[in-house]
Amino acid sequence: MEREIRQQPLMWSNLIDQHEEILNVVAAIRAFAPRSIQFIARGTSDHAAIYAKYLAEVLCGLPAGLASPSTMTLYGARPDLSDVLVIGISQSGGSPDLSHAMGVSRECGALTIALTNDPRSAMATAAKHHIDMRAGEELAVAATKSYTAELLNLFLLFDALAGGTGGATAMLPELGEQLINDAGCLPELVDRFQGVERTVVTGRGYSFATAREGALKLMETTYLSAQAFSGADLLHGPIAMIGTGFPVLLVAGDGAGGDAMTTVVERLRELDADLFVIGSQAIVDRTGAGIVVPGHVGEKLSPVLEILPFQLLALNLARAKGIDPDQPRGLLKVTRTL
Amino acid sequence: MEREIRQQPLMWSNLIDQHEEILNVVAAIRAFAPRSIQFIARGTSDHAAIYAKYLAEVLCGLPAGLASPSTMTLYGARPDLSDVLVIGISQSGGSPDLSHAMGVSRECGALTIALTNDPRSAMATAAKHHIDMRAGEELAVAATKSYTAELLNLFLLFDALAGGTGGATAMLPELGEQLINDAGCLPELVDRFQGVERTVVTGRGYSFATAREGALKLMETTYLSAQAFSGADLLHGPIAMIGTGFPVLLVAGDGAGGDAMTTVVERLRELDADLFVIGSQAIVDRTGAGIVVPGHVGEKLSPVLEILPFQLLALNLARAKGIDPDQPRGLLKVTRTL
Repeated sequence: MEREIRQQPLMWSNLIDQHEEILNVVAAIRAFAPRSIQFIARGTSDHAAIYAKYLAEVLCGLPAGLASPSTMTLYGARPDLSDVLVIGISQSGGSPDLSHAMGVSRECGALTIALTNDPRSAMATAAKHHIDMRAGEELAVAATKSYTAELLNLFLLFDALAGGTGGATAMLPELGEQLINDAGCLPELVDRFQGVERTVVTGRGYSFATAREGALKLMETTYLSAQAFSGADLLHGPIAMIGTGFPVLLVAGDGAGGDAMTTVVERLRELDADLFVIGSQAIVDRTGAGIVVPGHVGEKLSPVLEILPFQLLALNLARAKGIDPDQPRGLLKVTRTL
Repeated sequence: MEREIRQQPLMWSNLIDQHEEILNVVAAIRAFAPRSIQFIARGTSDHAAIYAKYLAEVLCGLPAGLASPSTMTLYGARPDLSDVLVIGISQSGGSPDLSHAMGVSRECGALTIALTNDPRSAMATAAKHHIDMRAGEELAVAATKSYTAELLNLFLLFDALAGGTGGATAMLPELGEQLINDAGCLPELVDRFQGVERTVVTGRGYSFATAREGALKLMETTYLSAQAFSGADLLHGPIAMIGTGFPVLLVAGDGAGGDAMTTVVERLRELDADLFVIGSQAIVDRTGAGIVVPGHVGEKLSPVLEILPFQLLALNLARAKGIDPDQPRGLLKVTRTL
């Protein structure tokens, strides 16, 4: 897991330099002219889909949603998808229900694209087009580099579809390298979380995906009960469980998503929660505790960087608790659900 | 909260007897002939939207998704919604971000329908059509009767859109009455949960909505860290945190969704989790502990009944813990997010 975390900046660099495959798929999408998008994914890849939903709607003006594969696999739904773009996201491409849903989507008329780490996988074969996410072989059970590879591939896809030329991606590798080598008060954070059984992770907008994926890393690697909520949804009920000293990890970078977290920060301080921020210098200064994620790449790309402190926290907290981060109990690398 | 839980069967009865308003809206939907559906909702109403997504796809063959209002409110997205049906769901209809997203959807060409408990609410006014959910005034902060009113209104809507005549709804009031008056081993369950800080609630298919809403009731009323996962997503990572004695509430009724939980039940037993079932007689018999939810109404309507034991558990567990279930800390009845 540690090696794969450290491989990310170089992997991004290679991906940014060479992504003709994505541009070919963009041409196919333009020709198809979809009216909406559905993503098929589970686990970590579902969080990449949440991120991509924002890109699709904000950059491309295309309404997007996350498919529930079980409507097709359990209930036999055969929706009319003749103007729908369906994008399946999976590191292994191997879960039977997801490749089945991909095949059914294709039969129902959708333009189908699979983003996987294995061109020979069942999902890659079931889709009309395949994008190799090129994360390199991932061995650790907890996905790290395949997650940021998914984010970056999806950014390059939707940015190109919207007529962009890759935005600020070129700055990512160096900033990622810095963040991995100097994650500030990470040791302090590991100490704070040693005796903790439950936590809430929250963010809004593009950073909601970070909150979801950060919580999942903590759950699967350190067995913490980590719950992720969008800042808005947190206020619609779950905030009741937060009292004095309740540990909260809050993701808030520069930009509209981070700005919208101001109300949440205020409420959490009123409740005397134990607040730790992953985000902009300004919010870390205001709350007094946190890890600064450089904001130069802009809000749309910041999820690629923001997840790094969570990956490092999961890794180091697992070790501090005597858990082998490479072999979490009860998990296999490829999850086969039906 | 207790009174509102008990009011549900009579409220359902009135709704089933008189729902011309829904039939009028169905005629408007048919005339518009949407190609896809987006739901706008937060909190409890978001769980009703998850349920309705299954109905839309399985009964009506219409791809459906849950909108992220913040793409419109924070990031100014203006997607082309000229063949999209947008359904907003909210008890109060009063949260500014949701009514704003509804107004923007209408400007972007969508057919907009609001399902609220207040015909004069901002969301009701922003939408072209309004369906009064007719739950009656809801005073308790934790939504109970408005949730099942939402489910039932949405069932009647999609069932009629698919050419149905209300299915087995007529049986709901009596079965609900029975379940409220005799929720079997509920006192035992309250005892078991008294010392618990965290739990997982899981279900699949239509019952995934029940798992989500059940977890929210426990969070907001008893301050438990209750995490909901679809049975499939649970296996894709979070199951790592479940060890010996970890309390799990599993929803599994008769039908494809419940059948698909068999693998999950097996895995949880291997892990020696403390498993409690809300569902069919067969699964309760097999696992040895649980509350039976009568399956006569069929899988599509069972979420209306399945949530009752969770509402009663939240109510009674709150009291056992000395918490006032009518006034959870940190919450107001109408949540105003931007």
